[in-house]
Amino acid sequence: MASSSGRRLNIDNVNPHVRAAKYAVRGELAVKSEEYRAQLQSGMTDLPFTQVISANIGNPQQLDQKPLTFFRQVLSILENPALLEKKDVLVNHLGYKPDVLERAKRLLKQVGSVGAYSASNGVPAIRQSIADFLERRDGFPANQADIYLSAGASSGVNTLLHVICADDKSGILVPIPQYPLYTASLSVLNATCVPYFLDESKNWGTDLSIIKESYDKAKAQGTDVRAIVIINPGNPTGASLPEEDIRAVIEFARQERLVIIADEVYQTNVFIGEFISFKRMLRQMAREKPGVYDNVELASLHSVSKGMVGECGHRGGYFELVNFDPQVQAEIYKFVSIMLCAPVIGQCLVELMVNPPKPGEPSYELYQKEYDAIFYGLKERATALHRAFEQMEGVECGVPQGSMYLFPTIKLPAKAVQAAAAQGRTPDEFYCMRLLEATGVCVVPGSGFGQKEGTLHFRTTFLAPGTEWVGSIVKFHKEFMDEFR
Amino acid sequence: MASSSGRRLNIDNVNPHVRAAKYAVRGELAVKSEEYRAQLQSGMTDLPFTQVISANIGNPQQLDQKPLTFFRQVLSILENPALLEKKDVLVNHLGYKPDVLERAKRLLKQVGSVGAYSASNGVPAIRQSIADFLERRDGFPANQADIYLSAGASSGVNTLLHVICADDKSGILVPIPQYPLYTASLSVLNATCVPYFLDESKNWGTDLSIIKESYDKAKAQGTDVRAIVIINPGNPTGASLPEEDIRAVIEFARQERLVIIADEVYQTNVFIGEFISFKRMLRQMAREKPGVYDNVELASLHSVSKGMVGECGHRGGYFELVNFDPQVQAEIYKFVSIMLCAPVIGQCLVELMVNPPKPGEPSYELYQKEYDAIFYGLKERATALHRAFEQMEGVECGVPQGSMYLFPTIKLPAKAVQAAAAQGRTPDEFYCMRLLEATGVCVVPGSGFGQKEGTLHFRTTFLAPGTEWVGSIVKFHKEFMDEFR
Repeated sequence: MASSSGRRLNIDNVNPHVRAAKYAVRGELAVKSEEYRAQLQSGMTDLPFTQVISANIGNPQQLDQKPLTFFRQVLSILENPALLEKKDVLVNHLGYKPDVLERAKRLLKQVGSVGAYSASNGVPAIRQSIADFLERRDGFPANQADIYLSAGASSGVNTLLHVICADDKSGILVPIPQYPLYTASLSVLNATCVPYFLDESKNWGTDLSIIKESYDKAKAQGTDVRAIVIINPGNPTGASLPEEDIRAVIEFARQERLVIIADEVYQTNVFIGEFISFKRMLRQMAREKPGVYDNVELASLHSVSKGMVGECGHRGGYFELVNFDPQVQAEIYKFVSIMLCAPVIGQCLVELMVNPPKPGEPSYELYQKEYDAIFYGLKERATALHRAFEQMEGVECGVPQGSMYLFPTIKLPAKAVQAAAAQGRTPDEFYCMRLLEATGVCVVPGSGFGQKEGTLHFRTTFLAPGTEWVGSIVKFHKEFMDEFR
Repeated sequence: MASSSGRRLNIDNVNPHVRAAKYAVRGELAVKSEEYRAQLQSGMTDLPFTQVISANIGNPQQLDQKPLTFFRQVLSILENPALLEKKDVLVNHLGYKPDVLERAKRLLKQVGSVGAYSASNGVPAIRQSIADFLERRDGFPANQADIYLSAGASSGVNTLLHVICADDKSGILVPIPQYPLYTASLSVLNATCVPYFLDESKNWGTDLSIIKESYDKAKAQGTDVRAIVIINPGNPTGASLPEEDIRAVIEFARQERLVIIADEVYQTNVFIGEFISFKRMLRQMAREKPGVYDNVELASLHSVSKGMVGECGHRGGYFELVNFDPQVQAEIYKFVSIMLCAPVIGQCLVELMVNPPKPGEPSYELYQKEYDAIFYGLKERATALHRAFEQMEGVECGVPQGSMYLFPTIKLPAKAVQAAAAQGRTPDEFYCMRLLEATGVCVVPGSGFGQKEGTLHFRTTFLAPGTEWVGSIVKFHKEFMDEFR
């Protein structure tokens, strides 16, 4: 018998499109921060900090955010329906309110067991509840048949890009900076990312002339641009788009026949102004000019991961399709069928999110109190962090508008840029690595999201409690600037 | 302003690889069966049956299978950790045993909140618990760093195929008949499916000469065959592979440098003989001939969806990599990172599955009783269904060996074949559609899994309770044969 030959797979022969994909949110810095965390837990360390702050990822419940009581009480019954046989115990000994029991009972009737596969596009009654929510939110009709439950919004984006992109000439307009799900998925699909820059000087708004320029350039290069991604409120920027920006994008999409992919997962994380959905604006424009917008295709996404719900680990989300061709919808249905269905308990959480306790219902008061505490807590932390950035030399950061992030610009001394190059790192990577090593605070370099050439940023969440970590950033920054001055 | 132009997307310009994918398990028949179910619920119908039996999909809890009490009690606490503050109520009023509380407490300590993202490859302590299980099962070491939690086994297969297939020349050996996840995923990826037939005359075993023939033919056509998929126990066939078949496949994979993808999700659904894992056999062979098998790459998958757990809706699963290159593993890690992590409550369910109550622990007795009742119930139903098939003219079906399915051969009269062709259907599709229309029983035509030319089959689960539906199949079959005689 021959001796063992080499392995079949190596880094040079695996899928080159997977290899090309970049996903910095969970990249080298994140891995290193987990190593530090393990070292701290073991006690065997002389690190210069006592805790790791994972400000690299919008993961509210890993930090301080508590789950909403009503939601989790309902889920506990869905997981163990036998509890419903002990109503008096639930109500009298465990403090479950009657509307918790009613909701659990209703969902169980609609879902059957949360351990069973649902329909590929989600439980019909949950799709209906989402449609009802969308009607209330937007003031326009929504149809449950156009709604698809997904394992978080990420999985929905993956589905949409898979169906929309036909080959390597298919292009998708993606904002820069962007959440790297988009560029990574397009890499894996071997489709073309058509980047357009957001306008930092206008609070990271969408500048249509810049979008047009990118679009025209891509088209001239032979790219078949098919869709435009808008993240609103923005990630990593936090920007909340005004009505005129949304109108301009819709009108542009109509003219150029682009599918609009509206990533609206931060729709409740808005501190300034109000959230305006693309769906509402599209329907509004269609009402103003009947017939003109009937073929503008919109896919809008939402999730239980963000907002005051913050249930990332449950992988719940949905997308709604507007004006899509029924045959294309059938392909989307088939595609999601291959993975069977979104997690059913996550689907139930979507239902709870879109249909929370109403005023007058027994659980309302506590729900609203918890919800508001999270909302104002986030706002307060964002403000404190922003204030800290304002003190820092060479750091500029717009007023917090929404989402869970700040994305300051940093100007680093030439010596720091050289030191970074000597390590084979971009200056922002170098800065963020040093920040992690010195303070245990993990943030993501701007290059992970894309940034205009010659500019440097980092993204940090404002989810972590306390002010100590903010202080440690300020202190680090001063020392860093002094070191490389 | 111009009037509305056409939509951007239509069936002719969406991703042709998505369009080419076929997934019959949730295809036309399944959709029609759901319409019937809705009609029956509305009461507005004159259908010739009173219930729809979804025998098309292995979805135990949609039918009769009850969740295991221990598992769901633990999950109810994970969803609402506040319950742990009421220990006396849980124990004295709700009958939760102390080991339920302990497990929930331990998992919460390891996981944090089930609403938080975990590490991309899963919660470290859960990976360790899986590694411990694999060591107990196989008698060989397992390393938590080689284990990746996934959203059901399907998502794991998707990951593996994405990394392994580099381009349209990359080929994967897939058994025929097969669960269509494989062919569908390869279509979407635009990689090459290299089918090899299972041997119906040998209880659907793997015949190495047939595998070699397929392999050689594909190689001659320029296909770069990279991996071989084995589904053991078989889906749709139910076959449980003997040791010599497994050894032969491993030896072949070594010689030809093929990655082995072992889909072992039915490992506890075995009625005849015992389940032998590919991991155990590979390590055994490596022990017998040191050094020879050190580079044979194996990925083996498991899931909470099947077996006596049957928790499909929770989308829990994992895969273990053996002998993989660390750089390739890093690409797999990055790929799963893009979708963030598997549902965390599903991860916890995996932990419960691999580490159930042990003899002497308070919950053991009930757990084992429930587990055995499901196991023997399935066996009994399989036997009853098999007996019914034996009575049916032109139907042949091997003795039930395992999984959740029977896959009988059917021989249909020439007139039925003509009637099918007149409708543009394959004969097995025609037969299954007529069966659904007459009885409400939904099964999947053999063509949905692949079958040798000139043969016809259908796949049915044996999950549905009662004997009435089995009787209705027998009655339908007789009438069908009479009609087309």
